[in-house]
Amino acid sequence: MLYKLSFQTGLNTMQWVYSFGDGRAEGAAVMKNLLGGKGANLAEMSNLGLPVPPGFTITTEVCTYYYSHQQSYPADLKLAVGAALARVGEITGAGFGDSSNPLLVSVRSGARVSMPGMMDTVLNLGLTEKTVAGLAALTGDERFAYDSYRRFIQMYSNVVMGIPHATFEEILESTKEEAGVELDTELDAKQLARIARLYKDEILKDLGSPFPDTVQEQLWGAIGAVFGSWQSARAKTYRRLHNIPEEWGTAVNVQAMVFGNRGESSATGVAFTRDPATGEKLLFGEFLVNAQGEDVVAGIRTPQPISRQVRERQASKKPSMEEVMPKAYGELLRIAQTLEAHYNDMQDVEFTVQEGKLYMLQTRSGKRTAEAALKIAVDMVSEGLIEQHTAVARVDPMALEQLLHPTLDPDAPKQQITVGLAASPGAATGEVAFSAEEAEKLAAEGRSVILVRTETSPEDIHGMHAAKGILTARGGMTSHAAVVARGMGRPCVSGAGTLKIDATKGIMTSGGQSVSRGEVVTIDGSTGQVFLGAVPMREPELTGDFGTLMGWADGVRKLKIRANADRPEDAATARKFGAEGIGLCRTEHMFFEAERIVAVRQMILADEEDDRKAALDKLLPMQRGDFAAIFGVMEGLPVTIRLLDPPLHEFLPKNDGEIAEVARAAGGDPAKLRARAIALHESNPMLGHRGCRLGITYPEIYEMQARAIFEAALDVVARGGQPVQLEIMIPLVGFKSEIDWLKTRIESVAEAVRTERGTLPDYLIGTMIELPRAALRAAEIACVAQFFSFGTNDLTQTTLGVSRDDAGAFLNEYLAKGLIPRDPFVSIDQDGVGELVKTAAERGRSTRPNLKLGICGEHGGDPDSIAFCHRTGLDYVSCSPFRVPIARLAAAQAALQSELEYD
Amino acid sequence: MLYKLSFQTGLNTMQWVYSFGDGRAEGAAVMKNLLGGKGANLAEMSNLGLPVPPGFTITTEVCTYYYSHQQSYPADLKLAVGAALARVGEITGAGFGDSSNPLLVSVRSGARVSMPGMMDTVLNLGLTEKTVAGLAALTGDERFAYDSYRRFIQMYSNVVMGIPHATFEEILESTKEEAGVELDTELDAKQLARIARLYKDEILKDLGSPFPDTVQEQLWGAIGAVFGSWQSARAKTYRRLHNIPEEWGTAVNVQAMVFGNRGESSATGVAFTRDPATGEKLLFGEFLVNAQGEDVVAGIRTPQPISRQVRERQASKKPSMEEVMPKAYGELLRIAQTLEAHYNDMQDVEFTVQEGKLYMLQTRSGKRTAEAALKIAVDMVSEGLIEQHTAVARVDPMALEQLLHPTLDPDAPKQQITVGLAASPGAATGEVAFSAEEAEKLAAEGRSVILVRTETSPEDIHGMHAAKGILTARGGMTSHAAVVARGMGRPCVSGAGTLKIDATKGIMTSGGQSVSRGEVVTIDGSTGQVFLGAVPMREPELTGDFGTLMGWADGVRKLKIRANADRPEDAATARKFGAEGIGLCRTEHMFFEAERIVAVRQMILADEEDDRKAALDKLLPMQRGDFAAIFGVMEGLPVTIRLLDPPLHEFLPKNDGEIAEVARAAGGDPAKLRARAIALHESNPMLGHRGCRLGITYPEIYEMQARAIFEAALDVVARGGQPVQLEIMIPLVGFKSEIDWLKTRIESVAEAVRTERGTLPDYLIGTMIELPRAALRAAEIACVAQFFSFGTNDLTQTTLGVSRDDAGAFLNEYLAKGLIPRDPFVSIDQDGVGELVKTAAERGRSTRPNLKLGICGEHGGDPDSIAFCHRTGLDYVSCSPFRVPIARLAAAQAALQSELEYD
Repeated sequence: MLYKLSFQTGLNTMQWVYSFGDGRAEGAAVMKNLLGGKGANLAEMSNLGLPVPPGFTITTEVCTYYYSHQQSYPADLKLAVGAALARVGEITGAGFGDSSNPLLVSVRSGARVSMPGMMDTVLNLGLTEKTVAGLAALTGDERFAYDSYRRFIQMYSNVVMGIPHATFEEILESTKEEAGVELDTELDAKQLARIARLYKDEILKDLGSPFPDTVQEQLWGAIGAVFGSWQSARAKTYRRLHNIPEEWGTAVNVQAMVFGNRGESSATGVAFTRDPATGEKLLFGEFLVNAQGEDVVAGIRTPQPISRQVRERQASKKPSMEEVMPKAYGELLRIAQTLEAHYNDMQDVEFTVQEGKLYMLQTRSGKRTAEAALKIAVDMVSEGLIEQHTAVARVDPMALEQLLHPTLDPDAPKQQITVGLAASPGAATGEVAFSAEEAEKLAAEGRSVILVRTETSPEDIHGMHAAKGILTARGGMTSHAAVVARGMGRPCVSGAGTLKIDATKGIMTSGGQSVSRGEVVTIDGSTGQVFLGAVPMREPELTGDFGTLMGWADGVRKLKIRANADRPEDAATARKFGAEGIGLCRTEHMFFEAERIVAVRQMILADEEDDRKAALDKLLPMQRGDFAAIFGVMEGLPVTIRLLDPPLHEFLPKNDGEIAEVARAAGGDPAKLRARAIALHESNPMLGHRGCRLGITYPEIYEMQARAIFEAALDVVARGGQPVQLEIMIPLVGFKSEIDWLKTRIESVAEAVRTERGTLPDYLIGTMIELPRAALRAAEIACVAQFFSFGTNDLTQTTLGVSRDDAGAFLNEYLAKGLIPRDPFVSIDQDGVGELVKTAAERGRSTRPNLKLGICGEHGGDPDSIAFCHRTGLDYVSCSPFRVPIARLAAAQAALQSELEYD
Repeated sequence: MLYKLSFQTGLNTMQWVYSFGDGRAEGAAVMKNLLGGKGANLAEMSNLGLPVPPGFTITTEVCTYYYSHQQSYPADLKLAVGAALARVGEITGAGFGDSSNPLLVSVRSGARVSMPGMMDTVLNLGLTEKTVAGLAALTGDERFAYDSYRRFIQMYSNVVMGIPHATFEEILESTKEEAGVELDTELDAKQLARIARLYKDEILKDLGSPFPDTVQEQLWGAIGAVFGSWQSARAKTYRRLHNIPEEWGTAVNVQAMVFGNRGESSATGVAFTRDPATGEKLLFGEFLVNAQGEDVVAGIRTPQPISRQVRERQASKKPSMEEVMPKAYGELLRIAQTLEAHYNDMQDVEFTVQEGKLYMLQTRSGKRTAEAALKIAVDMVSEGLIEQHTAVARVDPMALEQLLHPTLDPDAPKQQITVGLAASPGAATGEVAFSAEEAEKLAAEGRSVILVRTETSPEDIHGMHAAKGILTARGGMTSHAAVVARGMGRPCVSGAGTLKIDATKGIMTSGGQSVSRGEVVTIDGSTGQVFLGAVPMREPELTGDFGTLMGWADGVRKLKIRANADRPEDAATARKFGAEGIGLCRTEHMFFEAERIVAVRQMILADEEDDRKAALDKLLPMQRGDFAAIFGVMEGLPVTIRLLDPPLHEFLPKNDGEIAEVARAAGGDPAKLRARAIALHESNPMLGHRGCRLGITYPEIYEMQARAIFEAALDVVARGGQPVQLEIMIPLVGFKSEIDWLKTRIESVAEAVRTERGTLPDYLIGTMIELPRAALRAAEIACVAQFFSFGTNDLTQTTLGVSRDDAGAFLNEYLAKGLIPRDPFVSIDQDGVGELVKTAAERGRSTRPNLKLGICGEHGGDPDSIAFCHRTGLDYVSCSPFRVPIARLAAAQAALQSELEYD
């Protein structure tokens, strides 16, 4: 495919410039890393024989060279650019800077991926005082020549020289005023020439130097601006947000101009080979007659649809391209089909029609909605265009999130009350309740409830669960409300700062609007918006294309997907989304429910082991019931139950009012309760008396839980259910001795249950790996533990020494300053935490080759982290129920990626 | 040295039993691991031809076998024991169980190191109803025979069968009453025989089975008791506390009895070859005429001194052994000298004189005070007995702690007020002050002060420094008071729970005693005691033997020793103790002093960078002065300065009263102050907004500090001082990007200073390695950092996920349950944290071979941790000033140990 064009200078040791046009090219689509996306595709289209104006691409390696050599160019670059320009001249018959037949070019940036913040486009470059006159003479269209000139000065000055748009707008407006016209198009050649002069005067005044009047100066100015824009603040921010490495660099594309503004037989437009919103197979797009690209962007004129079908559907009064330029339309349709078949993907193309002739200026894979992505991928398999694996690889897993939650009808009228953080996706409508109790009561009556709190705490869990959605006035993306809501799959808007809540009066207000207890509101956890009343919704569709693609993904992936679920309802949701087990069933949430918290507190306040056991005896049947219900839902799938993890003070009331209330409810002494709360207070609860440390200091707690688990498993079977695959997980192990000691205790309970019941379910005992020490000592821990589940939330906190609750104060600044590429709580820190996960996996399997490995941190739902888990050889990932489809797809893509790498 | 005795059975594949006696032995002193300390030394003494009663040792391998085979013995053990017993019979001419000439034996445990909790001794074993009569006949001393029998039953029943002493005491007392006598010795043979019968009846009643009346049953019962005692609760606890591995096991020594209770020409005693308290070279010890070993222990009779010199010095009325048994004494003296010369160490021997003939029953290295250890080690080098290296290896570094602080005169009269935790060693006397301000004021007047607080907080630092000692009513060994006091080398008693403090009234009370402001008390931070008034003290002696030994240690060690010191006074103390630099100079303590804290708070409360800079400008000259003073003291030695580390909220007042006061002092708004304090509050401050995270979010803080450091270094040189070796340390780095970013900032400050001053001191920029991620990413971090200092306190907290402040609730229980061998905050967790240190050292040096490595956590003063640092190839350890001599000696011992291992 690659061939060396004869005119390439023999002096080059590196090829800095790649030419294209006239039915051939030095580059190709596969050379994106070198030529950028735009350049590679221009080369590819040239090679396909499509009508591409000739041009050349300055490679990304020049950008790299530029930044590693004090922003200077390779010595031989000028020669190469000159040669390439000469070739463009040969093909077009025009000369760069030739006033008799001036070659005009566009200069565009082009990184590997499209990137806002990069210098976009300079059109009409090559116009000087001399060549503009030549162009006028050559075309016989003085107005066209001076309009192009004035556009060029304006665009170049803005994009390359940084002069604000407004400067020129003022001149343009005052000239129009003087001339007594309203539209730019009404200005004649003289007036346009005068505007160009005024522009240049203004530039001289502003910058102290004249507007460049040689084509070489213009060209190198524009090239320098492209390279310079690679390090602009916006580009940097975009790279950070999208994980684009700085070292990629950008290419520069220089291409002969074609003009969509040469009259009624000229036009410019964009088209998609399929509908990017729905995925429907038809040529979708819009165009403007007698215009250049910037006119579409400026939005002064309304573009027209491309195909008649779309025009009719939209009931547009303006004729379609199919109708006004049937020949060019036919050509475009043919080319669109060619390109789609060639690239095997839906294409987004830019084109210009100059005096009836179609030119292609760009093609790339088209952006699309999740819905369209699904439909296109599945359709293309039916059409025989792509393989199932390609379809699986092509849908962005995170985009599925849009499809998994109810969404608000975008066309419905809405009255917004406030807007907060999009803390947990999905939309929900319900009556406002200001306390967990109220929410639970209303829900019990079958009403839909939105729980509104200033902020939530663990005691609100039951109310959060009863509610359809949660709205808080305070708290960020990792606040209690946000984390718990995401785990439950409840839509949540957090930190709606304008909201004032008076729970006593039962009223909330924001910006003059007020909503009372029982009034209906709708929240959109995907946007953070809150609306008055019920807004119509669209329910998620889990069958059809979604189901088809998921089926293909399941056929490919190696990782099992489990869900984190603490309740039967969550377990049912997880199964609906395709979970193959529960990877994390936290037992502490069960402790917060109304009648239980009293017994839990009695346990904590007990002075003696006997009193503690008495309180635990009350909890035993409740826990047994919880587990039995979950096992019932899971019908024989594996369930990993984590024994009690949080420090005990989390279960105690915090302030004096609560303490008094609790003491009254529990019939205890408030002073004692307060003393106990103070005694249990910790400086750093994250690193405190929790996890297996509780199990070791209060063994009767874990013994009760183990008994509840064993008995529940037996109860389910006794009622005719399938035997659960039981995995008992001990949290926060750092030393082999801890799990050793606890395993012995649990086995004693197991033997006691076997004696009482005459039988015992099979079970595994394993541990969470959530401390660096546990990862390092995995070989010996695996001598005891039968499985590892990586608790990467806590492992991230300890490995990085960052408390997630406190990280807001600096992590955002780290992201803004580019010190870290991504939030390590969102996507696993592969270099640091990842090494520990790998180490633990290898060492653990060195002593127990069949050690089962999973991950149950929030990273289990992040595609990059899932790919990491696949590469590290984990057996499964566990994520929140609503992330299960995302995880299924991401796991399939990771498997496909590995195949590619090993092929 | 080892030879196989001919009578060893040919059936053995393993040799389970080693015989000794009659001038030769199968074992030797070097076989301690196999024979235990006692058995190996008995063999050695036999080989030396010393008068050792014959016997044999059952090896520690039998113990190992016993516990790995369901507490059973190797099949061929009985045969081997029988053969060994036969040989003892041959030598003594007696027979085990032979009623005409019964062989009696002692059975003793003997692990590698002496261990309380192990079965100690059964004497006179081999007496049955038949053999006791035979013994009476043979010796013609019926009383001796039945007294021995009665003693045997009592001892065996207690030690082997677990019957309480009291049971027998009752029988003995009532018999004496009946007989109308007062002393045991007044009982005649008949009465003693009756007592033996009554003992046996009682045993039968208690246990339902008779006292064993065959010698074999007795022997194997005693052997089983020794092995069983290896797993007794007390033995386990002792092993845990002294890091003795369970797998070592114990040996059993069976030895022919000799009798110190055969009349006035018989005796038993213990002796040291030098004075164990002072190290003076003389035979030191005590003996009892006509007694068995247990009589010494029982304390019924007062023992007599061994040498006349000691007797005269003590003005004892009882004659010395030298006087009453001159021949045996001469023999003992000769043997003692032989043993000391043979073992090249001060020996602790046990002996018995039977009818004028001396027998040696044990020899071992004698325990000694730190003072004695020093003197003996140095003297022995002068005497040509040992090499300097041996002297260095022989002194326990931790014992030096006794010598480095003033100690209370043990003989002075004292009136104790209360006792708390021995939180920081040393004694101090002073007037009681109840606030930091008061302490500072009195100290400024030249008075000695003891600061008494319920508990201390960072604001008390200046008062703690002004005080001679600190006493608190609350707080443990790692409370603020304890940690800071240890760092400063101030004696401290913390958590004196009986103390009630009324600071307003200026009075403290405990158990009815009260002390008012200004009254004098004395605290002993080495024992936790608090006394009324001034108690006379002894000052530490850092020259003489101490200086000599330290000099030898310095000649051996490879590690440099630095100190953690924040103030000039601490730096001076550190140099006095031999520190070769400052490894950690914390800058935050400087922020707490009276006039500074106001500026610090202004900085924290500033809304804008400019206000913050204004506040920092006030702090600049103060910090510059601090640093200049320290550099002056250090006279050109290296000084590592850590930039600000703690979270800012540590500098803000905590409760409303303090807030109001501070707002008044700073002229600010209490509401704003409170709001800021709330905003800065963190869930887990240990993992929060601190360390370099502060430097990145508020760069102007580190810039001020860097400027103060550079300017101070220049000021010192300008005043004619030596240029300091400057090391600027950035705390809590987890990502290379952090140190990258901050290094650039610091370098800008450096360039600014160079421009202003025309010169700049040399400096290094490095980082603390205190996060697991930093250890893992050390290769890339070392591309920027010029040195690493391991902050093993925080690295332990993060690697283990244990907050030191909160660990009390479970770590003590872990230690008690044997789940961890030692407190990981006292001695570095080599398996977990240690791996990270090793990894960081290796990876860091992979990219920067000359990377300087040190440790500045509290582990820097722990001998085991220092040995680890030596093995890991660190360049230095840094510890609190008072630990410097300990570290020097420990480092020397580590170097000697390595030489041994590589030899």
